[in-house]
Amino acid sequence: MKPLILISNDDGYQAPGINNLAHLACDFGEVVVVAPHTNASAKSHSLTVGTPLRAVKVPYRAYTIYSVTGTPADCVKLGIEYLCPRKPDLVLSGINHGSNASINVLYSGTMGAALEATICNYPSIGFSLLSHQDDAMWEPAIPFMRKIIDYALNQGLPSNISLNVNIPILEKTPHLKGMRVCRASKAEWTNSFEKRVDPYGRDYYWLTGKFNCDDNGEDTDQWALNNGYISIVPCRPDFSDSDAIKQLQSLNQ
Amino acid sequence: MKPLILISNDDGYQAPGINNLAHLACDFGEVVVVAPHTNASAKSHSLTVGTPLRAVKVPYRAYTIYSVTGTPADCVKLGIEYLCPRKPDLVLSGINHGSNASINVLYSGTMGAALEATICNYPSIGFSLLSHQDDAMWEPAIPFMRKIIDYALNQGLPSNISLNVNIPILEKTPHLKGMRVCRASKAEWTNSFEKRVDPYGRDYYWLTGKFNCDDNGEDTDQWALNNGYISIVPCRPDFSDSDAIKQLQSLNQ
Repeated sequence: MKPLILISNDDGYQAPGINNLAHLACDFGEVVVVAPHTNASAKSHSLTVGTPLRAVKVPYRAYTIYSVTGTPADCVKLGIEYLCPRKPDLVLSGINHGSNASINVLYSGTMGAALEATICNYPSIGFSLLSHQDDAMWEPAIPFMRKIIDYALNQGLPSNISLNVNIPILEKTPHLKGMRVCRASKAEWTNSFEKRVDPYGRDYYWLTGKFNCDDNGEDTDQWALNNGYISIVPCRPDFSDSDAIKQLQSLNQ
Repeated sequence: MKPLILISNDDGYQAPGINNLAHLACDFGEVVVVAPHTNASAKSHSLTVGTPLRAVKVPYRAYTIYSVTGTPADCVKLGIEYLCPRKPDLVLSGINHGSNASINVLYSGTMGAALEATICNYPSIGFSLLSHQDDAMWEPAIPFMRKIIDYALNQGLPSNISLNVNIPILEKTPHLKGMRVCRASKAEWTNSFEKRVDPYGRDYYWLTGKFNCDDNGEDTDQWALNNGYISIVPCRPDFSDSDAIKQLQSLNQ
């Protein structure tokens, strides 16, 4: 039996990125897309509580698509439990339109979906392309994406690990150098809101901001992306910090 | 000048938990509450994109309250940048109504707020009480919460660390034994949706499920909570896994 590949994203089931990824994944197995009905960017690992979910099957030829009125993590849970014809062999998320490198992994619905699969003990990979253009070039990344998917299906990922794969803007990277397995660089978004005044004299705030990365390590995803590589960050869905546990022993009282 | 303490949560600014925490925090400094206008449980680290935010100042006597039309992480960003009279010395989140121990930290809006503060380089603590009752007992935990807040203000937390503090159901824990600094236990939610059929014959799905924890380590938050302790998990907002980076070196190509 062919491997079953469940695919979700956070840009919604109609986004070009998820359709590109689904077509690529069809070379590796049977594909079921379960993705948000509308854009769910920056939904992180959120779940829908207090409101039930609906799932609608969207007619298509090459693979199955369900559109779900929920978050990316909802989609993965519902896909695994109810919508897939059998348990998936691999869960993919993306291709996201925009970076999920560095600290963005925490806000990312794409990676929320991938990490949810990992929690449920399914191997998973999130793919993101740094360009926000719907018609962004992605073809030069295809051989590398194939290698990563092949690795996950045939060699297997480390247990409880999801891969956060980011691809540089390929129009600006004529010579894609390869892939780098690395850590997430430390960064923050500064000046993250723009304050405006509405026609009635009341303030409102638009999310905006500047990505500020002072982490110059050559072992980071930002370094890889800035130097013509695809970055691969192995992510474990666990914030526990063993060094800090030792440092805070005096609170054991 | 008194320390400034910014407080958020995910249950909304009217929840009993945040009002209890704010009253307690008034003993340590000047308090500004910036919290979601409505319940934002399970919003994780999500941000509001595509829709601007509004902030309304709620009249109160003992401390300042802003109600914001956004997520917990939005509230912390907006509080730090626009609503606080000066930069906070400490950011608190909670007291959440329900557990954020183990894997729940990933879904938690309470901890999304606390971790956002950490990313912005402010020390932060999220507090959660395992009871969902609005009038749940919390008084026996007060001396311990005071110790943790005092530690953060006077000794300082390790850099880039947020504390995830969970308090057992105190009605069922007549002898609170103390606090344990520990790691998050590994777990998952199984059977996470209940499928129903509406009056028109169409399926819908309610989020539900059973918390399933096979991690029996005595160094975990679940062990601490099951054995009469308050759990304190130091959380670093970084999923990068150094062991997996080594294991996956063959993908550097």
